[in-house]
Amino acid sequence: MTLTDGRRPGSRGVAADHVSLRRNNLSVVLRHVRDLGPRSRARIAEETGLNKATVSSLVAELVERGLLREGSADSSRALGRPGLLVELDGTGVCGVGGEINVDYLAVSALDLTGAVVLEKRVPVDVAHLDPATTLDRFADLVQEAVAGVEVRGGQLAGVTLAVPGLVQGETGELKIAPNLGWGELSVAQEMRSRLGDPTYPLHVDNEANLAALAAYADLRQTEDEPVHDLVLLTGAVGVGGGVVAGGQLLRGGHGYSGEVGHMPVAPPGRTCGCGRTGCWETVVGLTALLHKATDSDDPVRDPSLDVEQRLAGITRRAEAGEARTLSALKDVGTWLGIGGAILVNILNPDVLVLGGYFAVLGPWLKEPLEKAIRERVIAPDGGGCRVVRSELGFAAAVRGGAQISLDQVFVDPTRIGVAR
Amino acid sequence: MTLTDGRRPGSRGVAADHVSLRRNNLSVVLRHVRDLGPRSRARIAEETGLNKATVSSLVAELVERGLLREGSADSSRALGRPGLLVELDGTGVCGVGGEINVDYLAVSALDLTGAVVLEKRVPVDVAHLDPATTLDRFADLVQEAVAGVEVRGGQLAGVTLAVPGLVQGETGELKIAPNLGWGELSVAQEMRSRLGDPTYPLHVDNEANLAALAAYADLRQTEDEPVHDLVLLTGAVGVGGGVVAGGQLLRGGHGYSGEVGHMPVAPPGRTCGCGRTGCWETVVGLTALLHKATDSDDPVRDPSLDVEQRLAGITRRAEAGEARTLSALKDVGTWLGIGGAILVNILNPDVLVLGGYFAVLGPWLKEPLEKAIRERVIAPDGGGCRVVRSELGFAAAVRGGAQISLDQVFVDPTRIGVAR
Repeated sequence: MTLTDGRRPGSRGVAADHVSLRRNNLSVVLRHVRDLGPRSRARIAEETGLNKATVSSLVAELVERGLLREGSADSSRALGRPGLLVELDGTGVCGVGGEINVDYLAVSALDLTGAVVLEKRVPVDVAHLDPATTLDRFADLVQEAVAGVEVRGGQLAGVTLAVPGLVQGETGELKIAPNLGWGELSVAQEMRSRLGDPTYPLHVDNEANLAALAAYADLRQTEDEPVHDLVLLTGAVGVGGGVVAGGQLLRGGHGYSGEVGHMPVAPPGRTCGCGRTGCWETVVGLTALLHKATDSDDPVRDPSLDVEQRLAGITRRAEAGEARTLSALKDVGTWLGIGGAILVNILNPDVLVLGGYFAVLGPWLKEPLEKAIRERVIAPDGGGCRVVRSELGFAAAVRGGAQISLDQVFVDPTRIGVAR
Repeated sequence: MTLTDGRRPGSRGVAADHVSLRRNNLSVVLRHVRDLGPRSRARIAEETGLNKATVSSLVAELVERGLLREGSADSSRALGRPGLLVELDGTGVCGVGGEINVDYLAVSALDLTGAVVLEKRVPVDVAHLDPATTLDRFADLVQEAVAGVEVRGGQLAGVTLAVPGLVQGETGELKIAPNLGWGELSVAQEMRSRLGDPTYPLHVDNEANLAALAAYADLRQTEDEPVHDLVLLTGAVGVGGGVVAGGQLLRGGHGYSGEVGHMPVAPPGRTCGCGRTGCWETVVGLTALLHKATDSDDPVRDPSLDVEQRLAGITRRAEAGEARTLSALKDVGTWLGIGGAILVNILNPDVLVLGGYFAVLGPWLKEPLEKAIRERVIAPDGGGCRVVRSELGFAAAVRGGAQISLDQVFVDPTRIGVAR
């Protein structure tokens, strides 16, 4: 039996035994209700092919673990005694996500239904603080979120922290985060010790990967046609990419995939945070836009202000038709298209999602980007790729972090103890 | 229970019933023996967690279907009655792959163990023939392979045909093959009617995708460390890419992934087969090399000669230290590195496999390619990516085609009827 844990499948399957069969069937029922909505035990049995007695026993166990609950009566039944609907229990379990980025720290908690329990972002000029101070402040913020979940009486499924840098797949070690100015650092270990060696799972992952997972979850809920392949572009000063391919996050051999910001597509110009020249992010990142659109003493350049406020300043100028701003946005959009077409040619996503600062300025970036995709992608009609703006804004990575912690519960519901 | 059919997983699992449980366990046992080698029933039971009686029954059915056979006695047992080993039965089932490319047609048949049963490549100047004539000749060649399998007494698992162009994922329709000069064409339907509407499954797929699958199968057998993420570069005149990510072929939303040949990385120069300028294949493809290294009347440019003979001519000149040839190879290798670094930054493969003409000329291309990866990939040590030359040469796509037909048997052994 194969548990779809979102990681690479082994080449050989693992045969069914009774414990893993039970665990798998718990997962099947829980995901069935998540994906298709509240329904009766009888309907779950019908739709999954499991027999009714088994479904009843599985549902009972999931209710005990605080993952499902009895809902309203099933009004869809015309005849006979109405069955009770079972639905996801949002109150029992939460996942927490956190993010360290160039100019903010953020945190989010989601319940099992994906609803936001709490969310907070604090502007911090991380690039100009020493890592220890940043991690102290970050630990306080994460602790606040964990406490918020506990006050609510929920069990914590886990905490996943996003960093805008290279994170090694197996160990979660940060290798380098050029735009933070951070080198090799065990962020997970540093955070665990600051949080008092907690018992919940705590992981560190790449910011764009988590944002891509959040966008994927969001599109699954909002799109009519199922989307299984997407590329998410995110960032502000740095530019990151996250790829979902065939419904799975693409991580690469060592977890270093998605380093789109450093594609050498631009002519040698300004030096990149990574030390090279010609990197894509030197022509599409926020710094490039600010250099083109503003003078050096312009307040929108001030990293101590919240990035959304600063972008609101740019948006106001663009809406007012300010020529220098519009020209800078067009230039960034065109460069966005040149790199975007490369990604679409290689990955053929259903959707190219504009996240982070690209989402905010999307109304001005989208047209030159789509033009480049039509012109430069060899597959007919851009390979069917649509460009959409993420609705999640700068919350994408923290939501993805919370979600990935919750995903483990859907894969193996026995991770959560029976309700206290 | 999830069958790992190599395509996208659904978001919800499919619950176990008895038929699918049996089918899955047949698949588990068959793949177990494929991946880990001949072994006794007792050992299979131990290693898979299935009970002994079940394993005996599964093995009996797989033997009946001609997929496993009794081998030699198990000499590893120190005590007790020696168990008989069971092993893959190579004689019962074959898969066939075919390929249409710019200057050849090819075909291959593999048995269930992956051993080559027959293989043939015919130089044909496809770009200068009309498609109907090419398909007639191709059908003759495929028919020859099918007959070869049948003469051997084997069952045909299926036929998969490779084309160097955009193939739509669901339908297998060819959308465009710029370097053949072919537009939209239902290659599968054309071939089925030429082959007399055969009963075996016949599919059409992208050449580089199939070559990547063949390289993946090959690396699984030859590498000490498991490789789950690779990028294969193939082609001659056109350049294609195939991506295996997390052990699965990356197809994209509509099957158009891997169009690496048209990344706009080169300065506007010669017009590409696709009509654009600046495409990667205009600076790394065989035509670019020939233009730099040879005069227009040079016999190595003659497409009516076998491509391996022509490349042997280039190789001889490079080995003799001919300056113009070496300079052209260095130039192509440097451009190969510029695009290669983009792929490695995005996909973080364990291995970048040089296939097609890049494999033949690998000794001269590898150094500038590896230099570019070291310099331009942001992850430490090129993200751990190694450059290797494919051992399969121009047979990669046909082997991959034969393999993908056989893979379906490993996923669902009941596709093969009981032995006649």
